[in-house]
Amino acid sequence: MMKQTITLLLILCISYAQAQNADSVTIRKFYNEALANGKSYEWLRHLTKQVGPRLSGSTGAQKAVDWTKQLMEQEGFDRVFLQDVMVPHWVRGAKEVAYIQNGKQKTTVPIAALGGSVATAPKGVEAGVIEVTSFPELRALGADKVKGKIVFYNRPMDPTKINTFEAYGGAVDQRANGATEAAKLGAVGAIVRSMNPRHDDYPHVGGMRYGTGVPLIPTAAISTNGADLLSKMLKENPNLTFYFKQNCETLPDAKSYNVIGEIKGSEKPDEIIVVGGHLDSWDLAEGAQDDGAGCMQSIEVLRLFKALGIKPKRTLRAVMFMNEENGLRGGVQYADLAKKNNEKHMAAVESDAGGFTPRGFGIVGTPEQRAKVMPWKPLLAPYGLLEIGAGGGGADIGPLAQSGTVLFGFRPDSQRYFDYHHTAVDNFEVVSQRELELGAASMAALIYLLDQYGL
Amino acid sequence: MMKQTITLLLILCISYAQAQNADSVTIRKFYNEALANGKSYEWLRHLTKQVGPRLSGSTGAQKAVDWTKQLMEQEGFDRVFLQDVMVPHWVRGAKEVAYIQNGKQKTTVPIAALGGSVATAPKGVEAGVIEVTSFPELRALGADKVKGKIVFYNRPMDPTKINTFEAYGGAVDQRANGATEAAKLGAVGAIVRSMNPRHDDYPHVGGMRYGTGVPLIPTAAISTNGADLLSKMLKENPNLTFYFKQNCETLPDAKSYNVIGEIKGSEKPDEIIVVGGHLDSWDLAEGAQDDGAGCMQSIEVLRLFKALGIKPKRTLRAVMFMNEENGLRGGVQYADLAKKNNEKHMAAVESDAGGFTPRGFGIVGTPEQRAKVMPWKPLLAPYGLLEIGAGGGGADIGPLAQSGTVLFGFRPDSQRYFDYHHTAVDNFEVVSQRELELGAASMAALIYLLDQYGL
Repeated sequence: MMKQTITLLLILCISYAQAQNADSVTIRKFYNEALANGKSYEWLRHLTKQVGPRLSGSTGAQKAVDWTKQLMEQEGFDRVFLQDVMVPHWVRGAKEVAYIQNGKQKTTVPIAALGGSVATAPKGVEAGVIEVTSFPELRALGADKVKGKIVFYNRPMDPTKINTFEAYGGAVDQRANGATEAAKLGAVGAIVRSMNPRHDDYPHVGGMRYGTGVPLIPTAAISTNGADLLSKMLKENPNLTFYFKQNCETLPDAKSYNVIGEIKGSEKPDEIIVVGGHLDSWDLAEGAQDDGAGCMQSIEVLRLFKALGIKPKRTLRAVMFMNEENGLRGGVQYADLAKKNNEKHMAAVESDAGGFTPRGFGIVGTPEQRAKVMPWKPLLAPYGLLEIGAGGGGADIGPLAQSGTVLFGFRPDSQRYFDYHHTAVDNFEVVSQRELELGAASMAALIYLLDQYGL
Repeated sequence: MMKQTITLLLILCISYAQAQNADSVTIRKFYNEALANGKSYEWLRHLTKQVGPRLSGSTGAQKAVDWTKQLMEQEGFDRVFLQDVMVPHWVRGAKEVAYIQNGKQKTTVPIAALGGSVATAPKGVEAGVIEVTSFPELRALGADKVKGKIVFYNRPMDPTKINTFEAYGGAVDQRANGATEAAKLGAVGAIVRSMNPRHDDYPHVGGMRYGTGVPLIPTAAISTNGADLLSKMLKENPNLTFYFKQNCETLPDAKSYNVIGEIKGSEKPDEIIVVGGHLDSWDLAEGAQDDGAGCMQSIEVLRLFKALGIKPKRTLRAVMFMNEENGLRGGVQYADLAKKNNEKHMAAVESDAGGFTPRGFGIVGTPEQRAKVMPWKPLLAPYGLLEIGAGGGGADIGPLAQSGTVLFGFRPDSQRYFDYHHTAVDNFEVVSQRELELGAASMAALIYLLDQYGL
């Protein structure tokens, strides 16, 4: 009996080792193909240079829908289709103007209206400035001091956070809710220090929302150098004024689309694994890191399976979500339709943290589901994927969690992401081909293991 | 007895946990200081923009010696001193010219003479081209086919290697020994594909050496785009010719210096821990990643100890090694003097792989010495230092190994290093402030642990 047990254990061990070895060979093939013959970089060149900025509702967004659909058809995916989704349609209008008026001295500073903001009056708005670093500090000042003023939020991203997303999370309330909190106390505008770890001249835009029952006051991001200057000048002259003029507008919702390409599963076609990014971008640049990179990587994942002749057991879908930046309508719509159509989504992987060197994956699932992933760590470690554990999934795939889908957030190195995020410099040139390709291969490797072993 | 043993074990466990906790607090302080008040980035701006290129023997190299000495004095290190070292003095002279002559069609391509190469004749050299990808392939062709020709080495860096240093190691023999191998068969010149994972127009230079007893033929790097073009044109017309003219020259050895700053140890001043990089750079650019970054990080390590008021037990030295690029004379001289002066160097840490996001350290030492480092892993993991194990140390500190010094090579992310390496684009702008600062803090953390616990 003892002998039989040992023999059985031995057989199990050997089978496990053989399976791991076969998997490691396959994973190596994904990397070889992505690094030697990868397409994601040239696709990204097209998306950024030929399509360009693609804010929801814009012609750029529509071009991106058309082109990615065509691309996935050309790649011969089994099915390529669109999902209708109505999206917010905010437009910036003419470029903003802003200056600090300090006595007779007028100093121009770079600003950009935040997405969703109202315009100023046509002649602009000029008022005294109240600088704060938090909402409690603002409230402590009270309406007496804030009324009629422009509130200037100047809390920087905390440079001591090792992961820059944590620093972003600790500062972004100013952008998202700053106008509302300022309006509650009678302010006439809100200027927000850019969510930028660097000192430079680029305003970083991003979404904001107005609370109900408060006046809609205009709000804009100011570059970090501009914020530092304004803060310094305020210390010298608290009575200086700030002028800004912006021309943005919210138009009626527009019709747009999620774009989906699919490889049918050979054994369990009704179980779906999603890999995706968001196709929309902000309007100031080409949206290369955010999130052209994630979209092109996702299509590349499916191409890699085809190029290597690996037929997945489950159905794989590359999803280009629409409207992550200012509404998340695409992600919500995708999950709603999945539910309505009784689709079973086993797992979803999102790349929306830039096309930088891969470091791992964050997992949103039960401890048991996470435990299923842990034995794969030695297979992924040779590729620098060492940070695998509980963590964020992704905004677009988030709504799928309600139906029990396990979410995986691709985690590239975070150090440079917020240098470019939502600025005029998020262009093709700031993406490294190797870093981008390594990300695509890393996602393919994870998806291969998910498909092989389930959760 | 049992009870006593348990109590003792418990006390040991608690002491260990407390020590680990105190260490983790100190390490956090290094990162906070480096990220919030770090100086390395502004120092690097000075070194790159005010001093600039600093090939051994150049006025730039002398400026760099003077300025880093002054900087360490200003930072109030206990002792700052120079070590004389005679270095090779090679100069590029006027910019190179090269073109492909294909019938009547003349196509200019970007080349740059390799460091140590001789010039061409004043009117240049023009000859037919033999393309090869390896020395065995060249030898198989034999003198009959090679004589009077220009040998064109066109083996690319292998893109499928995950660590780019491995790909570099697999291609760099062409640059180092290509001229000699070609000359043995009677070639009149050697053109080498740049060690560059990208396709672009920048020649990547670097050192080469001539073997004894073979003619000294001129050799240059060609950009990867240039190499691809030449290869393509050769396939269409094997009889095309290549022309190049270069004006480089090896002058008599020049006097130069290693620059050393020191904080005296409080308990074991005679045990030395070195942290360093090399001060010299190639001549085409500012030498920002290679290796201004490592030099400024090394000085920053000592500044961090001072800023935090941490008095090391052992003596810490920041060493700016001279002449890593084309001779290694500074590294050899440093080790020779250490031996001559009976100095005990416990450990040496080198940063010469760029100022990119830290990933770990390679260790050159005995298995027992490496084992001493392993318990520190949990203290370093929160900072992304997950790749700690046997591996390369660094060229400059290499000669110290003979005397039993344990070597640590700082391992940043490798993906972008060879995009810039030895080219005209290795300038300040390609360095990320956060990545640079994280590297300095990582080295400080390691050195703090080395100083606390020894090896």
